[in-house]
Amino acid sequence: MAHEISRRRLLGSIAGAGVAGAGLAIAGGSASVAAPASVVTEPAVPFHGPHQAGISTDVQDQLAFAAFDVSTTDPTELVTMLKSWTAAAEAMTRGAPVPGDSTSAAVPPADTGEAEGLAPSRLTVTVGFGPGLFDGRFGLANRRPAALQPLPALPGELLDDAGSGGDIAVQACADDPQVAFHVIRNLARLGRGTVVTRWTQLGFGRTSVTGSGQATPRNLLGFKDGTRNIRGDDSAALDQHVWVGSQSDQAWLHGGTYLVARRIRMYVENWDRDYLSDQQAVFGRTKADGAPLTGTAESDPPDFAATGADGAPVIAHNAHIRLAAAENNGGLRILRRGYSFTDGIDPATGTLEAGLFFLSYQSDPAAFVTLQRKLGASDALNEYIQHVGSGVFACPPGVSGSGDHWGSALFDA
Amino acid sequence: MAHEISRRRLLGSIAGAGVAGAGLAIAGGSASVAAPASVVTEPAVPFHGPHQAGISTDVQDQLAFAAFDVSTTDPTELVTMLKSWTAAAEAMTRGAPVPGDSTSAAVPPADTGEAEGLAPSRLTVTVGFGPGLFDGRFGLANRRPAALQPLPALPGELLDDAGSGGDIAVQACADDPQVAFHVIRNLARLGRGTVVTRWTQLGFGRTSVTGSGQATPRNLLGFKDGTRNIRGDDSAALDQHVWVGSQSDQAWLHGGTYLVARRIRMYVENWDRDYLSDQQAVFGRTKADGAPLTGTAESDPPDFAATGADGAPVIAHNAHIRLAAAENNGGLRILRRGYSFTDGIDPATGTLEAGLFFLSYQSDPAAFVTLQRKLGASDALNEYIQHVGSGVFACPPGVSGSGDHWGSALFDA
Repeated sequence: MAHEISRRRLLGSIAGAGVAGAGLAIAGGSASVAAPASVVTEPAVPFHGPHQAGISTDVQDQLAFAAFDVSTTDPTELVTMLKSWTAAAEAMTRGAPVPGDSTSAAVPPADTGEAEGLAPSRLTVTVGFGPGLFDGRFGLANRRPAALQPLPALPGELLDDAGSGGDIAVQACADDPQVAFHVIRNLARLGRGTVVTRWTQLGFGRTSVTGSGQATPRNLLGFKDGTRNIRGDDSAALDQHVWVGSQSDQAWLHGGTYLVARRIRMYVENWDRDYLSDQQAVFGRTKADGAPLTGTAESDPPDFAATGADGAPVIAHNAHIRLAAAENNGGLRILRRGYSFTDGIDPATGTLEAGLFFLSYQSDPAAFVTLQRKLGASDALNEYIQHVGSGVFACPPGVSGSGDHWGSALFDA
Repeated sequence: MAHEISRRRLLGSIAGAGVAGAGLAIAGGSASVAAPASVVTEPAVPFHGPHQAGISTDVQDQLAFAAFDVSTTDPTELVTMLKSWTAAAEAMTRGAPVPGDSTSAAVPPADTGEAEGLAPSRLTVTVGFGPGLFDGRFGLANRRPAALQPLPALPGELLDDAGSGGDIAVQACADDPQVAFHVIRNLARLGRGTVVTRWTQLGFGRTSVTGSGQATPRNLLGFKDGTRNIRGDDSAALDQHVWVGSQSDQAWLHGGTYLVARRIRMYVENWDRDYLSDQQAVFGRTKADGAPLTGTAESDPPDFAATGADGAPVIAHNAHIRLAAAENNGGLRILRRGYSFTDGIDPATGTLEAGLFFLSYQSDPAAFVTLQRKLGASDALNEYIQHVGSGVFACPPGVSGSGDHWGSALFDA
């Protein structure tokens, strides 16, 4: 990860910009405070491309997520904001500041500055449009993909409206939390007067490993999570299950995907009191290695037909991996990008407010709904979790180049 | 940072421990899922020593902090818990799991497992005892250091009682957020029936740099924060300002220190609307380089006597660095260990609930009180911040070896 790319100096010329009333010779002292040679830099992920980055990209360590509601009713203002967001995200992805004047004394700096000096940190910024954007306020009612509807009520969920929904979602992922937060803060700022922040979520999920050799991270239940996930380099599976193809009813969404976000509270104190054998039965895997209970290695395919000496299935009927497996759901697969979270103490119970912020990408939200109807009804894990936040968003395709912007085909079509 | 130390396998023998009802030949498959060669490992910080780690230790990227209230009235239970906490913290610091049985099928695993496979990540675990511990419940009333009193009311603060105080504080710092969280969760679990978690706080503050060449991190106001902080390798300054010496009224605290924790909300949206020149006047430093307004490099000593052409001081009377400087406070210095935080949206205002979780270590909490009385009354920064949480704790000295435990001298004296 020791690439040569480093975050561009945000305010290199400020020192010469003059400080009102100071009357001092403040020379450009940039060289004298250059980062030391031991700086750990991390590479930039390309921003432009046929698909948005941050979907099939190798999962970064940290997440900052925000859902916004649009407060203007003027579609021109919305497009202007999306253009400024695109330019800002492209710059921040390279490790550069938000474009604009950050050096003049008598203006608020264009960039808030807290990521200055930090590496690009594999930052990706991904946007999605919620069903509310197509409610007629912006002349987009006939551009709504038929599949983009608020999710139906799902079994076992207990949703907090204030932490659900939203007209626009922004997912910022990076290996540095301050780099990810910097995105949400600066996009909220650029959106002032056009959008209001509805809810945010931070997440973490470091694996100590990056790249194609990425190890499967563990969730807060201590189990490896994502063993059978779609790999970011499996383009055939991505084309089949994730990217919206030319069959879509809305041309602007070709090359895009649908994001489902679910805030899943985990009752970790209860889980921690459970026997190891029961924990393993709930998942259908061993805790140590993540092997299916019918195998010996994490990558072994589960044998759902196997029975033990007592005739019972080795992987229980209500085991999480049985219910979620593609082979038990007509081949359905979704691309998951989960992050752990903890947000203090639940005042009602004194327990840790912790869990999994579940993000899945799929070519139709119905894939998630089908799986969650089954899991929410029968999963042995339901004793220990609850879905408490939810959102669904249509993610446009990637930005093709410097003249393009998020949502260009949606608004221009 | 590519050391050879790696987190010990938590559950290496689980695979052979048998799964009830499975009747399968689940062989020990540990070797086949060994971490790939590309694992980024990070070294362990020694747990034992004259002082607790996590105070003068180079600041790690991530913080998980928890304050606990003691729920038992039996001092023996409290000592038993502190012994188990010490053993667990020592193990986790090495990258090992919480001691105990994590491999038998018919017990809850001793370790919750989410840090399995992760590097030690420079983890430190630091404890402190709040004033409430000395209220007589545990026969410690005559062991209370005179300096350990609830902080007096301070100007400008608006404290949330639910996020303040506590009988025992635990500060877990690591370069991996999951490693830090793992500590808080497992200590809370070991403390069940003895303590209840009162409040927690996550923080981040990555600098992309570690070691003695550590660059000054930026806070969420975009400014370098900590330029004139006490360095972890400045043992003379630590002895003078941080460690409690033999003059203490309580022998058990020799080699310890006092921790002050302050949750400081930053009104970042207001700050972001401020002109660069005003932001710089508030701090008394340039935003780009962190140089004092009277100098050209970050390390230049501020010249508080300098005046501009208009006769006004270059560093304003109410500039943050003027009010906080040791030379303007009779030589007072404190060791700061600040972390940025963001905890979603403030429902009352729709603004980001973000700021600085300020931790300072000093040989007498009066040092903090003196500085904060001045800052809280006059600091130009007060327009943009508010102290909303607070705690004070006496941190015992380090654990000397495997037969020792946190608080041994306090309870045995």
